[in-house]
Amino acid sequence: MSEVRVAGVGLTPFGNVPERTSRDLFGQASIEAFDKSGVARSDVDGVLYGNFMGELSEHQGHQGPLMAEAAGVQAPATRYESACASSGVAVADAVKRIRNGEDDVLLVGGAERMTNLGTAGATEALAIAADDLWEVRAGTTFPGAYALMAQAYFETYGGEHADLAHIAVKNHDNALENEKAQYQRAIEVEDVLEAPQVSSPLGLYDSCPISDGAAALVLTSESYAEEHDIDAPVAITGTGQGGDRMALHDRDYLARSPAAREAGEEAYSDAGIDANDIDFAEVHDCFTIAEVLAIEALDIESIGEGITAARDGRTTADGETPINLSGGLKAKGHPVGATGASQIAEVTSLLADEHANSDAVPDATTALAHNAGGTVASATVHVLEVVE
Amino acid sequence: MSEVRVAGVGLTPFGNVPERTSRDLFGQASIEAFDKSGVARSDVDGVLYGNFMGELSEHQGHQGPLMAEAAGVQAPATRYESACASSGVAVADAVKRIRNGEDDVLLVGGAERMTNLGTAGATEALAIAADDLWEVRAGTTFPGAYALMAQAYFETYGGEHADLAHIAVKNHDNALENEKAQYQRAIEVEDVLEAPQVSSPLGLYDSCPISDGAAALVLTSESYAEEHDIDAPVAITGTGQGGDRMALHDRDYLARSPAAREAGEEAYSDAGIDANDIDFAEVHDCFTIAEVLAIEALDIESIGEGITAARDGRTTADGETPINLSGGLKAKGHPVGATGASQIAEVTSLLADEHANSDAVPDATTALAHNAGGTVASATVHVLEVVE
Repeated sequence: MSEVRVAGVGLTPFGNVPERTSRDLFGQASIEAFDKSGVARSDVDGVLYGNFMGELSEHQGHQGPLMAEAAGVQAPATRYESACASSGVAVADAVKRIRNGEDDVLLVGGAERMTNLGTAGATEALAIAADDLWEVRAGTTFPGAYALMAQAYFETYGGEHADLAHIAVKNHDNALENEKAQYQRAIEVEDVLEAPQVSSPLGLYDSCPISDGAAALVLTSESYAEEHDIDAPVAITGTGQGGDRMALHDRDYLARSPAAREAGEEAYSDAGIDANDIDFAEVHDCFTIAEVLAIEALDIESIGEGITAARDGRTTADGETPINLSGGLKAKGHPVGATGASQIAEVTSLLADEHANSDAVPDATTALAHNAGGTVASATVHVLEVVE
Repeated sequence: MSEVRVAGVGLTPFGNVPERTSRDLFGQASIEAFDKSGVARSDVDGVLYGNFMGELSEHQGHQGPLMAEAAGVQAPATRYESACASSGVAVADAVKRIRNGEDDVLLVGGAERMTNLGTAGATEALAIAADDLWEVRAGTTFPGAYALMAQAYFETYGGEHADLAHIAVKNHDNALENEKAQYQRAIEVEDVLEAPQVSSPLGLYDSCPISDGAAALVLTSESYAEEHDIDAPVAITGTGQGGDRMALHDRDYLARSPAAREAGEEAYSDAGIDANDIDFAEVHDCFTIAEVLAIEALDIESIGEGITAARDGRTTADGETPINLSGGLKAKGHPVGATGASQIAEVTSLLADEHANSDAVPDATTALAHNAGGTVASATVHVLEVVE
């Protein structure tokens, strides 16, 4: 089974560029990824691309071939859609295809154009990641759904809004030096607590922003990297994908994410490691409570204890297991279809000592990226390791 | 490398059921597929599902987990979108995953709800499979794009509308005994020529209908089928995927489909056969001209000769290489996301002597299914063979 190397990564700045199309954004990200990798575009065997709401935000489906074109690649292209985990599942499939031995070089990534819809329009478009018949028509939006999960968490395990606020503060701190982040601005706990409420207990600063952006990865087989003398010290050594019932009311727990647990266990087992080996992680913090549920599902924190992890400094940049050193979805931004691939890009740069925050984890060899769709009806986890 | 067996197939009737959701349709198709296969739902390792326009027709993205639920399956689920080739690419990925050895049983398929949009609404939704900036905004619709391809074909290689009419007549004839077909009604060449013009030279009877429907396949590894004594005499022995520039004006030829050729060559090579070994085929005849371009790209007919294939009886049910014995998209219907998987279902049933039209190909051992997206910016080809 061939090892999967991350030969190059590219990210547009995440933010508010409503005039730019997703093909424009993905083209830019892919140029950076190819330039860094030293891989020839003509060697690409396929394009695996995640996008969530292109039909609604730019009247554009069938984005696979369009993105191959934007990247200057002539190869079969597939678009993956799994809500906010769209490019996470693209990465998962890419890993399987390279291991399979059929493909040596894949361009993997995603993009999303959102801000042109405005905040209300984007919120409405995001709602199609929930069950239209049983959730959306009853008035559920994603802030509302995650607020329910936060309330259930507080009721079951304790905790309060101030605990969540520390997560937002931490992620904003982490983004300060990340030039690709949407917000490079520190905030205080008080800012979070005093921000306008979105859906109790979550306020504006508990929520990730609406973002435009793209991420691209050039993944290669180990043998290709060796033959072509590609400098690719980081490998994806574990992949996992989990699923759950779509609607919150069909779940056994509101305050747990079994799909993330399933994906994590599969990825750990696949990599031959366990949670104790993880030096840092990028997890899907679309809302502050989501980071809590994620680190518990991934066994980085025990059930019921994740709520204090940021507050008590266990997951801050100088903590035991830094979480979201990139700034996370909260501060770095969340162009939906790009997020999963962007997490892989951030982890790779951090591990390769090429990230503004690499100094926080100088001896790190092993990390993970966790990407989630909807209220975690879909999840992927990838373990990355320094192998050279 | 494990062989991929088709253990069970399920199809809803294709047609006009605007009140039914895609989850309802896919649930029904999956029941039939599981019942036929004898495979336990609890053995399913993943769900690979194709859907094209759910965002527009039922305000529903993230359909992967929803469809796993509808099928009674607890497994990670991914939605693939490649326009009209959406479930073709799902099948292609499923084949790779089973060969990889990581997955033993996959539920693969697709669904589309379209008729609730009405003909004009569905035509507008279908347009998102073309390039929004450079084609759709200039007024291109799919009937218009295929009409351009037909005009280019006539100009380059000759032929006339009456030649295309024979394709529609043939496919309607083939659907007469297919109880899942949208139209079980014979038509004459005159009917095609006298039908309202849609976009010159194509008329109403050159065009596939707007359809609702779903298709489901239970695919297993050879070892799983053997261990569980599953009766699965048909295997997918070759897979191929091709890509092309999205917009017609960026192509070298209007009247050829290089993406289909690329997919076909890959699938033939993968199966270790060539076009001469194909006993019959299901090809993507969204318009009559599309069948001509497909059989030429797949080397079933030489370039410039496919136009006479139906007229001269080479591709009729009693011809040398029957094409679209199911009735094809033209008469069987084209619920976009379901089409690729439904073609695999039809070919499997035909090869297994379980189809109303199996008598037309009593000694057939080898066939193919060709699925295309947009104006063939995406294509998949699968070779199926009787292996037991």
